[in-house]
Amino acid sequence: MTWDVFSLIGTAAFAISGAIVAMEEDFDMFGVYILGMVTAFGGGAVRNVFIGVPVSVLWGQGLFFIVASILIGIIFFFSGYLLKTWNRWGSYFDAIGLAAFAIQGALMAVEMHMSMFAIVAAAVLTGAGGGVIRDLLAGRQPLIFKSDIYAVWAALAGLIVGFDTYVHDVSLYLLLAITAALRMLSIKFHWQLPQRSLLGK
Amino acid sequence: MTWDVFSLIGTAAFAISGAIVAMEEDFDMFGVYILGMVTAFGGGAVRNVFIGVPVSVLWGQGLFFIVASILIGIIFFFSGYLLKTWNRWGSYFDAIGLAAFAIQGALMAVEMHMSMFAIVAAAVLTGAGGGVIRDLLAGRQPLIFKSDIYAVWAALAGLIVGFDTYVHDVSLYLLLAITAALRMLSIKFHWQLPQRSLLGK
Amino acid sequence: MTWDVFSLIGTAAFAISGAIVAMEEDFDMFGVYILGMVTAFGGGAVRNVFIGVPVSVLWGQGLFFIVASILIGIIFFFSGYLLKTWNRWGSYFDAIGLAAFAIQGALMAVEMHMSMFAIVAAAVLTGAGGGVIRDLLAGRQPLIFKSDIYAVWAALAGLIVGFDTYVHDVSLYLLLAITAALRMLSIKFHWQLPQRSLLGK
Repeated sequence: MTWDVFSLIGTAAFAISGAIVAMEEDFDMFGVYILGMVTAFGGGAVRNVFIGVPVSVLWGQGLFFIVASILIGIIFFFSGYLLKTWNRWGSYFDAIGLAAFAIQGALMAVEMHMSMFAIVAAAVLTGAGGGVIRDLLAGRQPLIFKSDIYAVWAALAGLIVGFDTYVHDVSLYLLLAITAALRMLSIKFHWQLPQRSLLGK
Repeated sequence: MTWDVFSLIGTAAFAISGAIVAMEEDFDMFGVYILGMVTAFGGGAVRNVFIGVPVSVLWGQGLFFIVASILIGIIFFFSGYLLKTWNRWGSYFDAIGLAAFAIQGALMAVEMHMSMFAIVAAAVLTGAGGGVIRDLLAGRQPLIFKSDIYAVWAALAGLIVGFDTYVHDVSLYLLLAITAALRMLSIKFHWQLPQRSLLGK
Repeated sequence: MTWDVFSLIGTAAFAISGAIVAMEEDFDMFGVYILGMVTAFGGGAVRNVFIGVPVSVLWGQGLFFIVASILIGIIFFFSGYLLKTWNRWGSYFDAIGLAAFAIQGALMAVEMHMSMFAIVAAAVLTGAGGGVIRDLLAGRQPLIFKSDIYAVWAALAGLIVGFDTYVHDVSLYLLLAITAALRMLSIKFHWQLPQRSLLGK
């Protein structure tokens, strides 16, 4: 139950981030809606395909679809009023979504007895995959490959879920809090991973 | 039987549109062929994955593959003569394809007892997904997110198929005609969905 | 056993090519890692989805994952020293990978009793799909649609595997050698497929 709340926060944050990118690219109302939905549900959908989760899991999220649809509508019609607030708080909701989605994706892979590589991949795909699809559909280079540390926290969360054979609810909430906090700190202090530029030499 | 004719018109129109975009981007003969095929069959292929249709359905379209292959060859070798005609008539064939594919995709989802969200998604993916993949592979921002109203007609057709529990062949043909006509009118009168630009403010 | 050596060469070459493209685009360490892995394993992953290979095949490649991971790390930390060598030899390893992957993909489709179209598609997806995903994630137009002849050799290898009902190991090694050689000659002599430019007219 509480878990669903975090998933819902993540779904909402991802849907809104997709809708904002679409409006920045002058997409029409349909494009805004699709980009919002794809950002919220695309990562999980691709994860399902690659770890073999049945499609019914994707389409059984009716309530989440409705919430995301309504939010995209609100952001589209009231973007002027809401964006100022979003710019301040949005990335914090997004961090909660990243953490909740990554842990959820990793747990699914664990349940299906996948290898450690698959568990980490499921965490990264679920947490960061929607954002990659969003950026590709918007004609942008995916943000997560260059931005303040993002998907690495999803990978770490996946790794911990994969190693931890005694998964308790309490430890999962702790993991969620730590993962989200690390992402928030990455934004706040602009933590960057090392780069090796070739063209700039 | 008649239905297959509409599907064939759609396949042909989508294959040709992919080939034309590839030539506009200076792709070589292989690139033109791939982009034509991906535009014609990519939407259905992605739909199959996400609503759980077995892969045999994709690969059982031998006749359609051959027709599309031949058409792409013809457009490649005789583009000079054909493009003038295509520019006038192409978007009308494309409208028929959009309608036929959307209805076909929605019916598949209905047969598999999917939820309404899945039915509409199947209609949009089948009708418009190939064009999105075409644009991504060509390095363009997907046209359907900004153009005269396009994929919304696929979504509407999917919605109607999803609600209509007594699906008769006659009503499907009527739906096909209306959907295609709405798309044609959208082109003719440049019907646009509302936009909310953020950067242009 | 010998076959695995060629697959490993291909995996290594593809992983390195992905890592190099990522560094050219100023991706961070995580982005370099992801692009390397996706280039090495993405083509096979997409092939699996579209010809119906179970997901366990993808995730059962643990050894290959580890080799690719280590190589990406080496290339990231020692790129300065290694790139000069790579620019001279890299495309030859890549040619071996293209050939080995294409034949492997086609054999998988044959084993699953797929149609000829599916066999050729599996060869092309396995041999060239990773490179396409790499270019899309890097925000580039896929190289293989314009470059010196590349994926066509994968398609030809697939066609021969599809026609050859008596597949012996010896003939497969011969096919690998010929396919790789044709790709190397394409680079050396800049063999190009015909183009039909529309915009340049």
